[in-house]
Amino acid sequence: MKKFSKEYINKFINLLDFSKIEGGLLPVITQDSQTNEILMLAFANEESVSKSLETGYAHYYSRSRGELWKKGEISGHVQEIQQVITDCDTDTLLFKVKQIGAACHKGFDTCFYNEFVDGKIKIIGKKVFDPEQVYKKQ
Amino acid sequence: MKKFSKEYINKFINLLDFSKIEGGLLPVITQDSQTNEILMLAFANEESVSKSLETGYAHYYSRSRGELWKKGEISGHVQEIQQVITDCDTDTLLFKVKQIGAACHKGFDTCFYNEFVDGKIKIIGKKVFDPEQVYKKQ
Repeated sequence: MKKFSKEYINKFINLLDFSKIEGGLLPVITQDSQTNEILMLAFANEESVSKSLETGYAHYYSRSRGELWKKGEISGHVQEIQQVITDCDTDTLLFKVKQIGAACHKGFDTCFYNEFVDGKIKIIGKKVFDPEQVYKKQ
Repeated sequence: MKKFSKEYINKFINLLDFSKIEGGLLPVITQDSQTNEILMLAFANEESVSKSLETGYAHYYSRSRGELWKKGEISGHVQEIQQVITDCDTDTLLFKVKQIGAACHKGFDTCFYNEFVDGKIKIIGKKVFDPEQVYKKQ
């Protein structure tokens, strides 16, 4: 797992451009570091990038709840950060992670499980857990 | 290359949620269909999704220019769509593409070429063309 010291984190945050999406957000793509499968896309503000780098666990900003969100806090399906990458415009992040459990709150291995085929949605993800069981403690 | 008929395109667009980002946009992750490498992230509005599905070539919405943007229009580095996938919330798209040339306007194979390592940025992408040559016709 990859963690960074506060000094380095501030340096990195200063390089990033949080100005393009209302609320000071940038998109974060989360990719499985072993299979290269894309697991999810979420948004982060400065606080969530900072928390991610400090703890080594992926944190996002929940737009629906309006708060910091540690991925897997309830389900235990945390993401251990292996690599932190930004793009040519430094307005998007890529976390390469080791996914514990599964990425999608609907029980699939990846959130990207709906393929558009001939006017229909074909489920291409693998269902790996039952959300009703995992989230019932909520 | 994957193309869809108008009827199917409208059906698909109606499934997508363009309401979460100002201007009716959603993020599109573009992934190399053969290597699974993430090539870029851009934004799309209804028009750009529609154009992408109709032509089979990835189109985005340029936030800086405020207009429809066919990827590779100037450079020739177009993206032939192989699969169109949406996520659990239908507010993000994933295009799996065959990339002609290279994805990044800065000359790299991928836009995600900056890894954050020990407080420094390490270039992990491959430089495959000279942007000054490719874009000089502009």
